[in-house]
Amino acid sequence: MKPAPALQKHFLQIKDLRAEEYAYLFERTRIIKTRFKNYEKYQPLADRTLAMIFEKASTRTRVSFEAGMYQMGGSVVHLTTGDTHLGRSEPIEDTARVISRMVDLVMIRTFEQAKIERFAAASRVPVINGLTNEYHPCQVLADIFTFIEHRGARGGNADPLACLQGKVVAWVGDGNNMANSWLQAAEILGFKVHVSTPGGYEVDPAVAGVKDRSCYAVFDHPLQACAGAHLVTTDVWTSMGYEAENEERRKAFVDWCVDEEMMAAARPDALFMHCLPAHRGEEVTAEVIDGPQSVVWDEAENRMHVQKALMEYLLLGRIG
Amino acid sequence: MKPAPALQKHFLQIKDLRAEEYAYLFERTRIIKTRFKNYEKYQPLADRTLAMIFEKASTRTRVSFEAGMYQMGGSVVHLTTGDTHLGRSEPIEDTARVISRMVDLVMIRTFEQAKIERFAAASRVPVINGLTNEYHPCQVLADIFTFIEHRGARGGNADPLACLQGKVVAWVGDGNNMANSWLQAAEILGFKVHVSTPGGYEVDPAVAGVKDRSCYAVFDHPLQACAGAHLVTTDVWTSMGYEAENEERRKAFVDWCVDEEMMAAARPDALFMHCLPAHRGEEVTAEVIDGPQSVVWDEAENRMHVQKALMEYLLLGRIG
Amino acid sequence: MKPAPALQKHFLQIKDLRAEEYAYLFERTRIIKTRFKNYEKYQPLADRTLAMIFEKASTRTRVSFEAGMYQMGGSVVHLTTGDTHLGRSEPIEDTARVISRMVDLVMIRTFEQAKIERFAAASRVPVINGLTNEYHPCQVLADIFTFIEHRGARGGNADPLACLQGKVVAWVGDGNNMANSWLQAAEILGFKVHVSTPGGYEVDPAVAGVKDRSCYAVFDHPLQACAGAHLVTTDVWTSMGYEAENEERRKAFVDWCVDEEMMAAARPDALFMHCLPAHRGEEVTAEVIDGPQSVVWDEAENRMHVQKALMEYLLLGRIG
Repeated sequence: MKPAPALQKHFLQIKDLRAEEYAYLFERTRIIKTRFKNYEKYQPLADRTLAMIFEKASTRTRVSFEAGMYQMGGSVVHLTTGDTHLGRSEPIEDTARVISRMVDLVMIRTFEQAKIERFAAASRVPVINGLTNEYHPCQVLADIFTFIEHRGARGGNADPLACLQGKVVAWVGDGNNMANSWLQAAEILGFKVHVSTPGGYEVDPAVAGVKDRSCYAVFDHPLQACAGAHLVTTDVWTSMGYEAENEERRKAFVDWCVDEEMMAAARPDALFMHCLPAHRGEEVTAEVIDGPQSVVWDEAENRMHVQKALMEYLLLGRIG
Repeated sequence: MKPAPALQKHFLQIKDLRAEEYAYLFERTRIIKTRFKNYEKYQPLADRTLAMIFEKASTRTRVSFEAGMYQMGGSVVHLTTGDTHLGRSEPIEDTARVISRMVDLVMIRTFEQAKIERFAAASRVPVINGLTNEYHPCQVLADIFTFIEHRGARGGNADPLACLQGKVVAWVGDGNNMANSWLQAAEILGFKVHVSTPGGYEVDPAVAGVKDRSCYAVFDHPLQACAGAHLVTTDVWTSMGYEAENEERRKAFVDWCVDEEMMAAARPDALFMHCLPAHRGEEVTAEVIDGPQSVVWDEAENRMHVQKALMEYLLLGRIG
Repeated sequence: MKPAPALQKHFLQIKDLRAEEYAYLFERTRIIKTRFKNYEKYQPLADRTLAMIFEKASTRTRVSFEAGMYQMGGSVVHLTTGDTHLGRSEPIEDTARVISRMVDLVMIRTFEQAKIERFAAASRVPVINGLTNEYHPCQVLADIFTFIEHRGARGGNADPLACLQGKVVAWVGDGNNMANSWLQAAEILGFKVHVSTPGGYEVDPAVAGVKDRSCYAVFDHPLQACAGAHLVTTDVWTSMGYEAENEERRKAFVDWCVDEEMMAAARPDALFMHCLPAHRGEEVTAEVIDGPQSVVWDEAENRMHVQKALMEYLLLGRIG
């Protein structure tokens, strides 16, 4: 049998890693991104294969993982529901046993978190959560790296986490998988999330799974959540899988549109982020997303770089 | 024009290769698998491209060929019926002429064997049968290698085929493409298949294409087929493409469930194999497939390794 | 930010490049093809990734770009309408901004030329037109290279464009994207196109975008267009996206079938080309496409080689 990977770790939720591991990952991300920008070839995963299992389609997750793996020298097998329905033709555990005999790493984008947990439990190789109904840890990783990139101290010896301490992130909109992952990150990394959602779309702390509720505060009105924030972020009103609720949500969310008034309530140097795709005029105005405080394109690119660092860590452990 | 590959051979049925070629392939499989397990990079196909044409979806065939080709350093173009319907928008021969100008090797998973034969006849490069209604030679290759791995003599100079001589393989269930391929293998490699199928699902020796019918025997009852067997193997009651017959088959096959009684009739050291996905409680009980005699996960992994050896052989000929 | 590619050029229409650039591309194609035929590894794009976006499926475009990129050492992310609908879930420009942050090159096959133009305008990396309703520049590149290969002077110092001067290309059939691209090529490279289409399917010079109409002539009857031609070429009666007009087109095009009479009207050494798939008995007879003047298989293979030269040029600029 193939020796176990350096770390038999999965990345299914933000809370699967510790603060010192995040500090390492963000530092590696910086190095790996710099190499990419300079066209320095860096291919430490040259004989490794990633299987990506998509039960919901996604351009961004697809391209960021696949191009990222190629840049690291590795290969990718892209499986869609046309190729496999997890848990339909055989138990999920059987699929996990077979696939994890053939590849080195698995990324799954599915609906229920329970599915990915079952898969991981039967897998011989690390599993990454590419998105579930409950969590979206890779996106929050990208967002935090983008914050550090724009607001952190420069210089090789700086602690990447230092700039996060005591900061306020305003989450405006759906209390969804992104919101849950932000809460977990706040608890581990020492910042605070100010959440404002329409009634009926609140964050469920039991799902988010945070122990210490001091890492977040809930506000009725989004302007209150944005007040004094270092970062304002939101998501589409209707995430994939909830299309049936579209009309109802359009009514409920109408006041949760990030606009210039909200940005003005935040700190003058506040950043705006959105995991995309964005619907201008719904959850965010064109002025904000296309304005000077928006870092959404860096954020999108950084998905790829943080995931490269994550894959490197799960497969090779700490470098150097 | 590009020089012809080392061997202008196809692998469309088990009988396309001779016993000495199988001995070579199983020995190469052992070497290639060992390298993989030790993370030794071995990339002899670094500038070669495999086209995979799937007219029926499959996780296992997909991942085993694709990850296998990547491990050997090569590249893969994965074509589904969304991309090409063999024989619909143009004659199969035209597709074969075009694709075989661009890639080095083709794997096809389709319905009629006749289609793959026509493709191969017009192709400039080797063609591998990834599954047809009539044959499934790569799976039987994996199964035999798994048997050798578990029951063969150890040591570098051992004849991998020696342990097969005079052995009995019990085939329980559908007289399908797997059964046909087992019969062809028995004739070439010197073992015997004891077949028991429900009435109406018998093996057709004309389709199997074996000349010497002494390589198999037919039994009415599966317990009789299992008696004294060294290997008991089965398949789902309803293979892909036969879903319309599902209800009818469930009734016909009800006594062809491999259970502990059947395994007890076999030799005490008999192995159990199944090409997966498995439906516990239908063609096999959970006790058997998840029990100590089952080698189904090794068997699944070995699909990949035998196919790597096969691709190496078809593209580069004998090594060393 | 990653430094800009060597050339910030797109290839959206034939007229996007100048004659001297075509001379360079055809010379590079010859060199790259020779290396491929000799199994000489040549992987200058070893850390580059191509994203292919297909809004219409295609075997040939798919395999030629993907296998071509692999042969050059690069990687490919293959996106279909299942993964992304350009302009549906977000503005095309947003998709372009995100994808062009992650990959080095984009190929798009879509319907409206306007879509690819908008994508390119927002993209940080070069964009290649893999087919639109209006143009098919890569196919015409392949066709001209095939003509040069068969009719050009041999020897390393020969001007690849010399053999094109004053030649006559007969275009028989639909005044479509291929016809438009032929006209643009004629204007730039100094040959002439004799066009014959059924009434209602004429070339629209405004769409083709040629300034000097002396590069083509229109004939009522296809025999007239073929008279004295050095190359006769055609396309299916109903291109993808026009299936609803199928019956109507079958009636209108019945006399636009390239047959031995038309080939006899052309020069004795005239070549026949077709971008495939071909429907024998409709736009061309079996005698012609399978006859001695047909170079359709070389033409299909050359798609791959010209595209390799094109990708090398767009990413690395002039070599040597």
